[in-house]
Amino acid sequence: MSIRLTEEKVFKDPVHRYIHVQDKLLWDLIGTSEFQRLRRVRQLGTTSFTFHGAEHSRFNHSLGVYEIMRRLITNFSDKPMWNDEDRLLALSAALLHDIGHGPFSHSFEKVFDTDHEEWTRLIILGDTEVNDVLRHVHADFPKEVAAVIEKTSANKLVTSMISSQIDADRMDYLLRDAYYTGVSYGQFDLERILRVMRPMGDQVVVKASGMHAVEDYIMSRYQMYWQVYFHPVTRSSEVILSKILKRVKVLHEEGYPFKQPPHHFESIFSNAMTIEDYLQLDESVMHYYFQCWQKEEDPILEDLCHRFLNRRLFAYVECHPNERLTDIMALQELFWEAGMDPDYYLEMDSSSDLPYDVYRPGEEQRVPIQLLMKNGQLKELSSESDVVESISGKKRTDHKLYYPADTIATLDPTIRLKIESILEQM
Amino acid sequence: MSIRLTEEKVFKDPVHRYIHVQDKLLWDLIGTSEFQRLRRVRQLGTTSFTFHGAEHSRFNHSLGVYEIMRRLITNFSDKPMWNDEDRLLALSAALLHDIGHGPFSHSFEKVFDTDHEEWTRLIILGDTEVNDVLRHVHADFPKEVAAVIEKTSANKLVTSMISSQIDADRMDYLLRDAYYTGVSYGQFDLERILRVMRPMGDQVVVKASGMHAVEDYIMSRYQMYWQVYFHPVTRSSEVILSKILKRVKVLHEEGYPFKQPPHHFESIFSNAMTIEDYLQLDESVMHYYFQCWQKEEDPILEDLCHRFLNRRLFAYVECHPNERLTDIMALQELFWEAGMDPDYYLEMDSSSDLPYDVYRPGEEQRVPIQLLMKNGQLKELSSESDVVESISGKKRTDHKLYYPADTIATLDPTIRLKIESILEQM
Amino acid sequence: MSIRLTEEKVFKDPVHRYIHVQDKLLWDLIGTSEFQRLRRVRQLGTTSFTFHGAEHSRFNHSLGVYEIMRRLITNFSDKPMWNDEDRLLALSAALLHDIGHGPFSHSFEKVFDTDHEEWTRLIILGDTEVNDVLRHVHADFPKEVAAVIEKTSANKLVTSMISSQIDADRMDYLLRDAYYTGVSYGQFDLERILRVMRPMGDQVVVKASGMHAVEDYIMSRYQMYWQVYFHPVTRSSEVILSKILKRVKVLHEEGYPFKQPPHHFESIFSNAMTIEDYLQLDESVMHYYFQCWQKEEDPILEDLCHRFLNRRLFAYVECHPNERLTDIMALQELFWEAGMDPDYYLEMDSSSDLPYDVYRPGEEQRVPIQLLMKNGQLKELSSESDVVESISGKKRTDHKLYYPADTIATLDPTIRLKIESILEQM
Amino acid sequence: MSIRLTEEKVFKDPVHRYIHVQDKLLWDLIGTSEFQRLRRVRQLGTTSFTFHGAEHSRFNHSLGVYEIMRRLITNFSDKPMWNDEDRLLALSAALLHDIGHGPFSHSFEKVFDTDHEEWTRLIILGDTEVNDVLRHVHADFPKEVAAVIEKTSANKLVTSMISSQIDADRMDYLLRDAYYTGVSYGQFDLERILRVMRPMGDQVVVKASGMHAVEDYIMSRYQMYWQVYFHPVTRSSEVILSKILKRVKVLHEEGYPFKQPPHHFESIFSNAMTIEDYLQLDESVMHYYFQCWQKEEDPILEDLCHRFLNRRLFAYVECHPNERLTDIMALQELFWEAGMDPDYYLEMDSSSDLPYDVYRPGEEQRVPIQLLMKNGQLKELSSESDVVESISGKKRTDHKLYYPADTIATLDPTIRLKIESILEQM
Repeated sequence: MSIRLTEEKVFKDPVHRYIHVQDKLLWDLIGTSEFQRLRRVRQLGTTSFTFHGAEHSRFNHSLGVYEIMRRLITNFSDKPMWNDEDRLLALSAALLHDIGHGPFSHSFEKVFDTDHEEWTRLIILGDTEVNDVLRHVHADFPKEVAAVIEKTSANKLVTSMISSQIDADRMDYLLRDAYYTGVSYGQFDLERILRVMRPMGDQVVVKASGMHAVEDYIMSRYQMYWQVYFHPVTRSSEVILSKILKRVKVLHEEGYPFKQPPHHFESIFSNAMTIEDYLQLDESVMHYYFQCWQKEEDPILEDLCHRFLNRRLFAYVECHPNERLTDIMALQELFWEAGMDPDYYLEMDSSSDLPYDVYRPGEEQRVPIQLLMKNGQLKELSSESDVVESISGKKRTDHKLYYPADTIATLDPTIRLKIESILEQM
Repeated sequence: MSIRLTEEKVFKDPVHRYIHVQDKLLWDLIGTSEFQRLRRVRQLGTTSFTFHGAEHSRFNHSLGVYEIMRRLITNFSDKPMWNDEDRLLALSAALLHDIGHGPFSHSFEKVFDTDHEEWTRLIILGDTEVNDVLRHVHADFPKEVAAVIEKTSANKLVTSMISSQIDADRMDYLLRDAYYTGVSYGQFDLERILRVMRPMGDQVVVKASGMHAVEDYIMSRYQMYWQVYFHPVTRSSEVILSKILKRVKVLHEEGYPFKQPPHHFESIFSNAMTIEDYLQLDESVMHYYFQCWQKEEDPILEDLCHRFLNRRLFAYVECHPNERLTDIMALQELFWEAGMDPDYYLEMDSSSDLPYDVYRPGEEQRVPIQLLMKNGQLKELSSESDVVESISGKKRTDHKLYYPADTIATLDPTIRLKIESILEQM
Repeated sequence: MSIRLTEEKVFKDPVHRYIHVQDKLLWDLIGTSEFQRLRRVRQLGTTSFTFHGAEHSRFNHSLGVYEIMRRLITNFSDKPMWNDEDRLLALSAALLHDIGHGPFSHSFEKVFDTDHEEWTRLIILGDTEVNDVLRHVHADFPKEVAAVIEKTSANKLVTSMISSQIDADRMDYLLRDAYYTGVSYGQFDLERILRVMRPMGDQVVVKASGMHAVEDYIMSRYQMYWQVYFHPVTRSSEVILSKILKRVKVLHEEGYPFKQPPHHFESIFSNAMTIEDYLQLDESVMHYYFQCWQKEEDPILEDLCHRFLNRRLFAYVECHPNERLTDIMALQELFWEAGMDPDYYLEMDSSSDLPYDVYRPGEEQRVPIQLLMKNGQLKELSSESDVVESISGKKRTDHKLYYPADTIATLDPTIRLKIESILEQM
Repeated sequence: MSIRLTEEKVFKDPVHRYIHVQDKLLWDLIGTSEFQRLRRVRQLGTTSFTFHGAEHSRFNHSLGVYEIMRRLITNFSDKPMWNDEDRLLALSAALLHDIGHGPFSHSFEKVFDTDHEEWTRLIILGDTEVNDVLRHVHADFPKEVAAVIEKTSANKLVTSMISSQIDADRMDYLLRDAYYTGVSYGQFDLERILRVMRPMGDQVVVKASGMHAVEDYIMSRYQMYWQVYFHPVTRSSEVILSKILKRVKVLHEEGYPFKQPPHHFESIFSNAMTIEDYLQLDESVMHYYFQCWQKEEDPILEDLCHRFLNRRLFAYVECHPNERLTDIMALQELFWEAGMDPDYYLEMDSSSDLPYDVYRPGEEQRVPIQLLMKNGQLKELSSESDVVESISGKKRTDHKLYYPADTIATLDPTIRLKIESILEQM
């Protein structure tokens, strides 16, 4: 069933040195237009506004996840429960797990209420090149791959290798995002962690001797979230992006006469988006529209697009929405007065992360990390590690209020001082 | 004249760790829309088809050149000939030296016969934000910056810091391109080289004790050219890109009824491109058109755009054009016969590099690297270094013939075998 | 007072790239025989038995501490409270803070009840080359340097730069030991931490924006302690080393006729060690004796020396001394019975670390890390950081019982099985 | 025959990340006292006087050579000519190739006219633990291993993997010495080179596609020789070391009454050194004697030992011995006059390296690097690479005259000025 390439193909990779492809199936998947499209979707969306180095694509990351999975499987290859189809299933799922990501996923999904995981399923199961390649294994193979990515597969072992608290996806993105941003936080000893991982029944467990390496990985994740992923400058650019998409939607509904009509968005406005439509919406296309819309008559759309393309971002203050409700409402009034629609120019944004959590009945399932003790017992990580225990289950939330400080600075002093005085007290 | 920022600004950079901005002038230049546009132009064009890590932008590189210049100036700051305006001039020129680069410069300039250096001059001197910021120093400052970049400035010392065989531009791109591709070839000891550089009259010279560090830099440059910059897979994608642009131009001239007309290209077709038009042509816009043109009726345009977006590149054989003229002509005949227009599907491409050269009267001026000997004499690098001498002035050229192996494989055997037999003998 | 070198001297350093020496004072201190002796004392004692890469000396580390101090001072140089003598004081103390370390300090001090800090004071204040060089600044300068290292100086700011929870010493050894061992745990962003440190009255505080970088440093420290510094294999070799020294002392007291008498140790046996005697006792000399003593008649000394030189270490089991008192006593009996003196062949060893602690009245003073908030207030780190709070003040202790598994394996089965059965239950 | 360990053992290594040991044979060899002794012999002798980071041992390097060999063999493992005994032979030879190195080999061998390669043979074939372990494979196995290291083995393929112009030994030491010194010169892409190496008959050849990676390796070697291995400060310390050994030999012959007699050297003075004697002479022992001899009455021995331990090295001038014969003779006269015996205080030292050479009949055999072209032909590297051709067969020699500038500075002006005036003209 599995056809080996006559000669192994390699990709030079700055994170894993080389990425090795040995199966025709994987090589063909990489060559599909749906996978190549990931070159035009950035891994970290607007993060490069904050960390200019982070311009890498989801294509780049997807190859990395595949490579970590390949190494993990190589370590497991002498385990009896493992067969060649499991191997192909794990590798394909690793490579394709992000195939449904659209442009600037976070903002896009929020505004249009779509879900990249649903698109992943549709692309794998639909009339696509990816589906065609996967069917060469056998007719049900696409379904099996989709089930692994969706976490509904009966093969819980493979599922946990790609979606758990210590999976190929997370391990690659921490290392890769740290490499491209240039921060040191995301570093951990991948090789050591791969060496201490063991398949055991339905899950991958970690030998207790590797506990400190796993602690280090959990701390890397914690640091990357607060230092990189939730950086307020990045969030500011996402606020603007969301506002652009929202404005376009509103204008479209109102029958606004666009100079450059949002052709690529029409099917999503009417809830009739096909796979083909979706696949065409990459970040280049979005940038094209933003550039054109800088010349629209609508001052809000024009201003927001100008801000996004030229990095004229919103400023922010820390502020808890519940405690500051009166102030926020006062600001909204003042914004209206000053001619700035607060629906577009004043935004409360909250980020929160749960760096590590143990499964609790009734909650969304998160597979906890199990340590394999010398005596053969399993113990959940946070019960053994003080450091992990200290952050386990603690949801940290960070609230910020975003506003256009540059525009406010140009307002008439009467109103400007009122606005600034409220902001300063926050 | 020079206004210091109240607090130094820093950018986290994976190559230089941090980039430090201390002057309001430089901070304002970075914020201009013309400089921010460089985020949408990749440093290495289509190289990421070969090295997937190389997705970094010219914005990224330009900050790096600025930072190297800043460090070099800090080392020179105790030298008497140096004043604060020289400093701002050097920093501005370093930051802006690539401001005129368009999308996929190499192919774009070849097809449309434009020159990014000319555009750099126009952007700095024209009605732009960059010009406006520079004029705050004084009215002639934009001209002085342009003159440094154009190498016509009377300030030969600053000019040589940005355009010589060992300048801030080259040192940054070697290190940066090596970092993002993941190859080891571009490494050299930047800190050591900066330590041994000395301003001396009109030029920067290198203390003889640093000769081996400079040798290492020259060899890095040589290796990067052949391993990365001239990689045949990258060249193949550039061939396709050029053919797309050529085809669009031809179709436009022929009055072809585009579904998506090439609006952004019209002024360049009529030789009437303004600065504003030029600045809008970034790589996102190009990708937008390529995607739309995948659905054009014209089979050549549609096929080439499909190839580019989905990385269905041309194959190649090494072949010297003069020695193989008969074969190439025979192939052209067969291509016509097979319905493949050889103007678009058969391309001879040659790359050549002169890794290091000494100035020779009458030739284009290249400032050679001068070593400052212990006795105060200057000696030209290649006269002291065997290794540099071995590659000095030797233009190495590499010729390859590109063709669509995938399409040929689907042709009728009669003609396919003829084509393949000629290609195999090459 | 401070004489600059006519040309800056540099040392190539793998951790800090270059170490820069600009003052004649520092250059002369590096050249003293007492400082050069540190080349023959390893930074991590017997750790290279576990991590073969960790063969670096205290000379190596001392230069690194100096360099971090130099960079920190450069950042502070525009601060008004700072003068040139403070600078020299800080640099000298940084360079010399480990000058009193003897060979394999940990074991040596335990057996001979000496203290490297006391030796540091004696070397700086006594009739030494170091003292002579320091007196060139002024007659009291040696005392001032010693006071900084002893933490009795009135200059609390300089003291805290070299001895606090985030000082030049710790920052260098974490980075350096991580580099030489090859583990990734010790990494943190030194440049960022140096940027956010601010002198403030008697101490150095950290800007709140740098809190996560400091968290990362604290976690590095925590990981290095458990992964590297307290590694049980290293501790096993230290157990053997201590036993050798103990045995020599006992034999000497008993008037044992050594083939190679312990000349270099005689003054310490009689509590009459001079500075000169102490300085001669480096790790080379210790190795010389160990090698000679492999041929002594005394079977214990001979065996222990053989074990140390050839890395025939003791095995270990985890075991809490209080809970296992009966077992340990039973083992002691059995060891005597088997002809293995338990004073030399059975050792309970405990390691513990307090990764971060806040000052509490009455306890040994540890300067806590203060964060400088935006509003100018100071807040103690663990009150702001969950992660640091989780490990703050928690003393973790790890107990292990060491024994010669290889010798036991050769014993008569009757007694061997008894011993092994007790060990297995632990 | 080959016994696998029940669980793979790993060593953390900063250069190769991990070193993997899978065979009991190799594990046992590492545990022998002869191999453990290599911990007390530095890889780069006195180089740490110049590059303080370079304190790593031959133990460290030997593990690295073994690991490169292991990876190379893994790549070759599907090749038909390869069997398990070949594998053990290659791994054992890689691990043991430096087992015969004594302390400060270069100087030691010059003064005592011994040869570490001869000692390697004796240790492998003699009554040693290494021999004992090797004989477990079969009685002739020690001889086979020795033959591979001596290049007299019939198994030319394995021989070339450890001794050729691109072998496991050289690849490890370049990378490792670069890592520990902190210089960037020794970097090259090991993984790529291992991928393009192919066993072919009696030798290992390199696929032509890897030519540039091999060029880069050759250039690294060239740079490391001149930047690190032949650094004049290192050579100065070797000069002093040789003079110490020479002085001891002379004093011993003259019946000088040593306070600390050179016991460990006596058998070598009388040409009666046994393997056991040789193995005891490690660098710790040498340091012990040097320290004791600082207190001898003989002023030359005392001074030289003091110089070595405290890094009071000789200064140098570049000078060609043949061109400067008269000056050197004049200096010798003046040195006598000043009471400095020129046999110990004036030394002409020449270093030369042949960075790459093609085999020429009649000369010492150096296996050149063969490129495997696409058409199956072999071509010698320098015939294809300009860069390698430029340094091929070119022996570069560097002559320096060493002298005690510090002592000269204290001489009576009459003679001092004469000496200095000659030195200045050189």
